[in-house]
Amino acid sequence: MRPSLRSADALRPVRFTRHFTRHAEGSVLVCFGDTQVICTASVEENVPGFLKGKGQGWVTAEYGMLPRSTGSRMKREAASGKQSGRTQEIQRLIGRSLRAVVDLKKLGERQIVIDCDVIQADGGTRTASICGAWLALHDAIAGLLARGALSESPLLDHVAAVSVGVYQGQPVLDLDYPEDSACDTDMNVVMTGAGGFVEIQGTAEGAPFSREEMAQLLALAEQGITELVALQKAALAD
Amino acid sequence: MRPSLRSADALRPVRFTRHFTRHAEGSVLVCFGDTQVICTASVEENVPGFLKGKGQGWVTAEYGMLPRSTGSRMKREAASGKQSGRTQEIQRLIGRSLRAVVDLKKLGERQIVIDCDVIQADGGTRTASICGAWLALHDAIAGLLARGALSESPLLDHVAAVSVGVYQGQPVLDLDYPEDSACDTDMNVVMTGAGGFVEIQGTAEGAPFSREEMAQLLALAEQGITELVALQKAALAD
Amino acid sequence: MRPSLRSADALRPVRFTRHFTRHAEGSVLVCFGDTQVICTASVEENVPGFLKGKGQGWVTAEYGMLPRSTGSRMKREAASGKQSGRTQEIQRLIGRSLRAVVDLKKLGERQIVIDCDVIQADGGTRTASICGAWLALHDAIAGLLARGALSESPLLDHVAAVSVGVYQGQPVLDLDYPEDSACDTDMNVVMTGAGGFVEIQGTAEGAPFSREEMAQLLALAEQGITELVALQKAALAD
Amino acid sequence: MRPSLRSADALRPVRFTRHFTRHAEGSVLVCFGDTQVICTASVEENVPGFLKGKGQGWVTAEYGMLPRSTGSRMKREAASGKQSGRTQEIQRLIGRSLRAVVDLKKLGERQIVIDCDVIQADGGTRTASICGAWLALHDAIAGLLARGALSESPLLDHVAAVSVGVYQGQPVLDLDYPEDSACDTDMNVVMTGAGGFVEIQGTAEGAPFSREEMAQLLALAEQGITELVALQKAALAD
Amino acid sequence: MRPSLRSADALRPVRFTRHFTRHAEGSVLVCFGDTQVICTASVEENVPGFLKGKGQGWVTAEYGMLPRSTGSRMKREAASGKQSGRTQEIQRLIGRSLRAVVDLKKLGERQIVIDCDVIQADGGTRTASICGAWLALHDAIAGLLARGALSESPLLDHVAAVSVGVYQGQPVLDLDYPEDSACDTDMNVVMTGAGGFVEIQGTAEGAPFSREEMAQLLALAEQGITELVALQKAALAD
Amino acid sequence: MRPSLRSADALRPVRFTRHFTRHAEGSVLVCFGDTQVICTASVEENVPGFLKGKGQGWVTAEYGMLPRSTGSRMKREAASGKQSGRTQEIQRLIGRSLRAVVDLKKLGERQIVIDCDVIQADGGTRTASICGAWLALHDAIAGLLARGALSESPLLDHVAAVSVGVYQGQPVLDLDYPEDSACDTDMNVVMTGAGGFVEIQGTAEGAPFSREEMAQLLALAEQGITELVALQKAALAD
Repeated sequence: MRPSLRSADALRPVRFTRHFTRHAEGSVLVCFGDTQVICTASVEENVPGFLKGKGQGWVTAEYGMLPRSTGSRMKREAASGKQSGRTQEIQRLIGRSLRAVVDLKKLGERQIVIDCDVIQADGGTRTASICGAWLALHDAIAGLLARGALSESPLLDHVAAVSVGVYQGQPVLDLDYPEDSACDTDMNVVMTGAGGFVEIQGTAEGAPFSREEMAQLLALAEQGITELVALQKAALAD
Repeated sequence: MRPSLRSADALRPVRFTRHFTRHAEGSVLVCFGDTQVICTASVEENVPGFLKGKGQGWVTAEYGMLPRSTGSRMKREAASGKQSGRTQEIQRLIGRSLRAVVDLKKLGERQIVIDCDVIQADGGTRTASICGAWLALHDAIAGLLARGALSESPLLDHVAAVSVGVYQGQPVLDLDYPEDSACDTDMNVVMTGAGGFVEIQGTAEGAPFSREEMAQLLALAEQGITELVALQKAALAD
Repeated sequence: MRPSLRSADALRPVRFTRHFTRHAEGSVLVCFGDTQVICTASVEENVPGFLKGKGQGWVTAEYGMLPRSTGSRMKREAASGKQSGRTQEIQRLIGRSLRAVVDLKKLGERQIVIDCDVIQADGGTRTASICGAWLALHDAIAGLLARGALSESPLLDHVAAVSVGVYQGQPVLDLDYPEDSACDTDMNVVMTGAGGFVEIQGTAEGAPFSREEMAQLLALAEQGITELVALQKAALAD
Repeated sequence: MRPSLRSADALRPVRFTRHFTRHAEGSVLVCFGDTQVICTASVEENVPGFLKGKGQGWVTAEYGMLPRSTGSRMKREAASGKQSGRTQEIQRLIGRSLRAVVDLKKLGERQIVIDCDVIQADGGTRTASICGAWLALHDAIAGLLARGALSESPLLDHVAAVSVGVYQGQPVLDLDYPEDSACDTDMNVVMTGAGGFVEIQGTAEGAPFSREEMAQLLALAEQGITELVALQKAALAD
Repeated sequence: MRPSLRSADALRPVRFTRHFTRHAEGSVLVCFGDTQVICTASVEENVPGFLKGKGQGWVTAEYGMLPRSTGSRMKREAASGKQSGRTQEIQRLIGRSLRAVVDLKKLGERQIVIDCDVIQADGGTRTASICGAWLALHDAIAGLLARGALSESPLLDHVAAVSVGVYQGQPVLDLDYPEDSACDTDMNVVMTGAGGFVEIQGTAEGAPFSREEMAQLLALAEQGITELVALQKAALAD
Repeated sequence: MRPSLRSADALRPVRFTRHFTRHAEGSVLVCFGDTQVICTASVEENVPGFLKGKGQGWVTAEYGMLPRSTGSRMKREAASGKQSGRTQEIQRLIGRSLRAVVDLKKLGERQIVIDCDVIQADGGTRTASICGAWLALHDAIAGLLARGALSESPLLDHVAAVSVGVYQGQPVLDLDYPEDSACDTDMNVVMTGAGGFVEIQGTAEGAPFSREEMAQLLALAEQGITELVALQKAALAD
């Protein structure tokens, strides 16, 4: 029995609010249950140094948590003067996941910077971030198409992510914080709309896991991501 | 004529949403028009080093802006490795303003940390932060009273803040960004519920200002703060 | 009765020593009683990045305290790896104050950097810094005029500053350290030679202050600044 | 055909040199072909702050690359003042992998710090590091047992790691740098001696990968790790 | 012919002003010609961590240059966030030189921190710093003796320093900036009052130097330091 | 009697292994007894900012110690976010020593960066680094000559270094760690192949030293450096 009483293969209630703030070219509030993340996409007409003159663009991401998005207050990273290893790991994951579905040549010599800022955390902030970031990226690209800066979309597919894990011996979908902090195995899976894997990061927190558990977890993740992509499509249809 | 068509002495629509996020002991979303700030109050059962064993508590504040809360994306302070001078100036102001209405001895040897994070900026983020932070502080203290950790409230009064300025030759209340970036004089005023001044920070951005303008600006600020304190009271009454 | 036995409206003995060190284009030692600050102005034939190609110059300031300028030794900011919030607040104030009396277009595409380094502190270091910095700036500009780099002075007026406060219930001028650390209200006022206000920063350290006290403090400040501008003129006449 | 002419399921020549340097409690040079990493284990009789008084120990890891371990010189992280996101990600992975096979309670209130420093890089530095680090950890624990500081070994099993990937459409084992920089999918797998999975990190560098490819890659990894554990055992037998 | 017209073995005019600022336990302005350094000694009733409970004291030094102490403005180290290698090298040299003449056990569990801040630079700032720092240290220790905190002086001897170099083929004493920037060999020598060497740091800026030149330089340095110690004694006699 | 039983004028066994790693243009493992340092030389086709367009090249050095190269683990400088004063002092010394034997004009507008990383420390790491760095520099320059990037060698001479010291009253050559940590005087000497002095850094750790001891130490150092240069030549002859 999950603490939230969800069935093993049930996502939390997922909500995408597009156009959440007004300055960014793409701005989405994504909620997975009590996990809430603001994802913005900012278009910048330049590229990082290592891409200057290479005839292609870039998509990158930064991630942060408000100090009191969590049960006890975390130090503000701006005040402590550096981003934690966890923060860097997550923002690198978000960036790679999005780049997997963007044709950077078609994007032209510009950069889209995704900011994912966690307002409230209840587990799965990185996977929620990826789901919301894709929508923000979509809206920023739609803006570039609408104003004629791009003639063809560089966006190749959807990308979405979900966590799966083994909680009290049972594979479950979309772990919330009480599950995340007690589970044996925790896996974050990123897939495209077409069903290809982009990233898999699995960690045995307690006992190592077997190949069979792995297969079960991937099947759960595939099902969850199929639902999440459908929800992204519904959000775009609004 | 103000860009927003407001009369010279009109505040923007002000909205306080208490209990905005669920982890913090106090959590308020404050909106002054398009300026939106999340203010949380976190109770910590310790004090900074310089107060150890002094038999009193502390109230302090940190301030940040989401990178894309503004018209063009600002660098994330956590990534650049330090807080700007502006950020430090604002968070010091918020902290001083709140401490002016707290009896730190009555608070006991604990610290309340206020985090003000700007979700969307349209001028006046520091004054909105102070108004919302007071409510978050109030709610955190109410929690301490409710669970018996305090027997008497250390909160002495309301505190609220507003900006005033000289825009196209005319003193106006509560500047939004278009006014703020074009005004001659910009003044932030912090007052208690009882009408005493706590902080005044006035800057001539263009032409120096006279003692008469100063008096007019203070009168406008007093009126605005009176309204803001009434709005804080209404929010508490909900 | 003030600890220094001064009357309420008396400045400390103020002394400006121009050409104090020999390398800088402007170099002034300013003493307000025991407060001693070296102010230098350095002319640099370039502007910060955000002004490149804008056809105007810039005036900026940096501030520091020698570690043992104070009663107990402070950490050296260079060793601790960052400037405190207080330091940044002060150097931003000095920069804004000076820019208020400089026509940056007339200055041309060059920058004047003011360094204010406190050799000995006894209260009022920021206001002494502004008074001395103006003289250093004046001398640097005089040098540019003398060598034909400028044909017309970009310096529009004097600027000077003084602190005022409520000490034991009485408004007093130019607080020294014993007063500063015990006063109820502390206000720094910056004015031009023509008598316009450039900056007002007032803080209630103890009880909030009223509009009447505010008016008294401003009157005291105006009187003090009038004297300080006269002293600047006398220093220039030497 | 692989650039190295290896068959798809062949490891590079792997060599472990124990007691490589003389100060550390465990010191191993591990070579996977041209990839060379010095792994040391240092025993410290204290634990990090968050474990004080919890009656358990800790195992953690740090990772670095000599600036010219790579084809073109990388900036020295000590000189640039921070560790890159990649470095932090890798050292977190090494630490988690080792902790998966250590009974931290049995270790007692002490910490073992693993340092993995890459002398020469040719792909697979993180997986080589984990393999060598386990041996260094083993030797450090053996020393604690030998001098009676521990009565029972807290080491539960071997741990080893290898990379697998899809290179020119074919799943291959233990990628070297030419393969790593050209492959479609890159996966790092960490397993215990008993054959359980500890970490799986798979990334589609080019086209997303399917569940079938995933299964093939995991099978290759299992085979490689079985060989690596055998090589660790051989090194212990020397 | 030296640029300053001094003879090869002539010091610049040297001046020590004791009690230069009023807060520090020892405070000396030292001038070697146009080189001016403020040296303060601060007594702190604690020791650095590595000496806790060891029954001895510590003497350490910090060094800085005002940004415009030099011909062109240097970056403020506090603003750039770190001390340069040169700064660290110099402050380590000053600290070691002073500790060579202090019986740290007799000093007791306290620390004396020397701050050397260069107001105006014209070559030889580190050697001037050492000469002035010794006087500041002396005065701080005299204060400890006077107020009974020490019963016996831990100061074993004088220490003084001077630079020597080969300028246009000729060994000269006490290089000023024009000589320093053009000389072939530059050597800083630190000696005790009794004539023992404490530090020798010689660098061939151009052609390497011979053992004969070395001997000549040391003889010149000995003569100069003998004079400097006499000047320290005269300053104490005032 | 020296702890190592060496005679007073005996070097430790010295070994140079050229082509130690394969990426760098020059790569040397240097061993002085148990002190082991990897020295690499990296050729970069650009120069630091201050030399842009000056028609000359640059040689610079960086130095580091693996955290467990020492008896107890040192903090990793990359993790603590800055290089210590000692590290900076050493890398500045290595750079100056090498530049003393390079004609920077003949090197052309390119930079050679030397990295000296201590694998195992037993005293004398800086002097071993200089000896090995010279060989790495030689090999990098040989490569430039071989591929026609240089037509004439900018390398003017050998450079080598050794430590000497007064251990238990006796001058000894090439101190190892047990001697280094117990000696009265410690001197590092850098000389060219032609026998000129490039750097002398002598420190009295205990009692000050006399001019006679100085002469004895320099004689010992000359003898040791003559042997080291012969060993460098032998290494080149291999």
